[in-house]
Amino acid sequence: MAHLINSDVFLAFSTYATIVVLKMIFMSFLTVYHRMSEKAFSNWEDTRRVSKDPEERKKMLQTNANVERVRRCHQNDLENIIPFVVIGLLYALTSPDLSTALWHFRVFVGSRFIHTVSYVMAIPQPSRALSWIVGLLTTFSMAYSVLTTALFL
Amino acid sequence: MAHLINSDVFLAFSTYATIVVLKMIFMSFLTVYHRMSEKAFSNWEDTRRVSKDPEERKKMLQTNANVERVRRCHQNDLENIIPFVVIGLLYALTSPDLSTALWHFRVFVGSRFIHTVSYVMAIPQPSRALSWIVGLLTTFSMAYSVLTTALFL
Amino acid sequence: MAHLINSDVFLAFSTYATIVVLKMIFMSFLTVYHRMSEKAFSNWEDTRRVSKDPEERKKMLQTNANVERVRRCHQNDLENIIPFVVIGLLYALTSPDLSTALWHFRVFVGSRFIHTVSYVMAIPQPSRALSWIVGLLTTFSMAYSVLTTALFL
Repeated sequence: MAHLINSDVFLAFSTYATIVVLKMIFMSFLTVYHRMSEKAFSNWEDTRRVSKDPEERKKMLQTNANVERVRRCHQNDLENIIPFVVIGLLYALTSPDLSTALWHFRVFVGSRFIHTVSYVMAIPQPSRALSWIVGLLTTFSMAYSVLTTALFL
Repeated sequence: MAHLINSDVFLAFSTYATIVVLKMIFMSFLTVYHRMSEKAFSNWEDTRRVSKDPEERKKMLQTNANVERVRRCHQNDLENIIPFVVIGLLYALTSPDLSTALWHFRVFVGSRFIHTVSYVMAIPQPSRALSWIVGLLTTFSMAYSVLTTALFL
Repeated sequence: MAHLINSDVFLAFSTYATIVVLKMIFMSFLTVYHRMSEKAFSNWEDTRRVSKDPEERKKMLQTNANVERVRRCHQNDLENIIPFVVIGLLYALTSPDLSTALWHFRVFVGSRFIHTVSYVMAIPQPSRALSWIVGLLTTFSMAYSVLTTALFL
């Protein structure tokens, strides 16, 4: 495993997993940006910094379409990127062919960047649906590889 | 670790973790199915495919009870399956007894399938609560094993 | 890797990751506590145990401020603790200096406990914002270390 962990496949997995998880974290900052620029918060204590007037502060607790859109995109990341990381890690440990593995990681990470841009900019469908499906297909392909290599019930 | 990774315990973990993560991904498809069959969407651009009438499209953005139920079930998966995967991975690396480990994985994965069926079909309580608790207990048992084997603060 | 997995850095990662994931699971119990004590549920079948009167049961399906607060805190845990676990695992495998690694893990886990207390008790800002940022900074520092050590595109 010193051997497996230092393998190019594992290094590639580490690189792409880190990049795509950083992209996921970026959604938090985008949420904060929209909350501040549109003055739309979830918590009473967060409105204090913006205004002291209770009536004004109450209005800031209403849901905001832009904030909700970014949060849905973030949620979709959690629902798709975490399965990729889990299954990708196990896949990287099954000693797959380097170039096959690299293309799985690249296609997945690329699809998630396209998904985020499609979602946040509300680009007409099916751009978002397609990028979502392409990401899942690479995850399914890796899951198939793990199950055929490692099956032990 | 080549040795640890090729161990039966690690193969079993890989198998069960992959299966239960695939089950989690399945919730996305169930959400899409309900969104389409009940015409209930979250994004304006998603309603275009179904209708061109703005009034009709607005109605499709209302929340739908069946969609929300599946999404709550998916969220519960995220909150329980990810901790299992993290703690289960560390547990699998502590060289536990194979049969003990297998039963932890089997009980957890079984409990999550029962949980999903109970949730989605709205089976009367306490079926859902019990399956949730049984899954957590196997996670706690593995966490205890990790902390007693690997404690380093 | 037997060597990497048995290293003090990996044992430390296992310990802190397990502790912070258990803290995340604790949020589920806090949600259940508030749901029961304030009689605020999401599912019709969950209200049965409390009352047989349909009118009363319908009222229990309204959202409750305390429940929603805990759920937002739980969601923030998912969005921050999972990236820590993923990037921290990869970081622990890059053979970092033990004391540097230990301080990354300790600061992150400490920041999340402070974040939870700040959120749940609605302590005035910027306590919650600061604890959130400190946790992210340790994650970014580990991600930087992974990308400079393992970069393979």
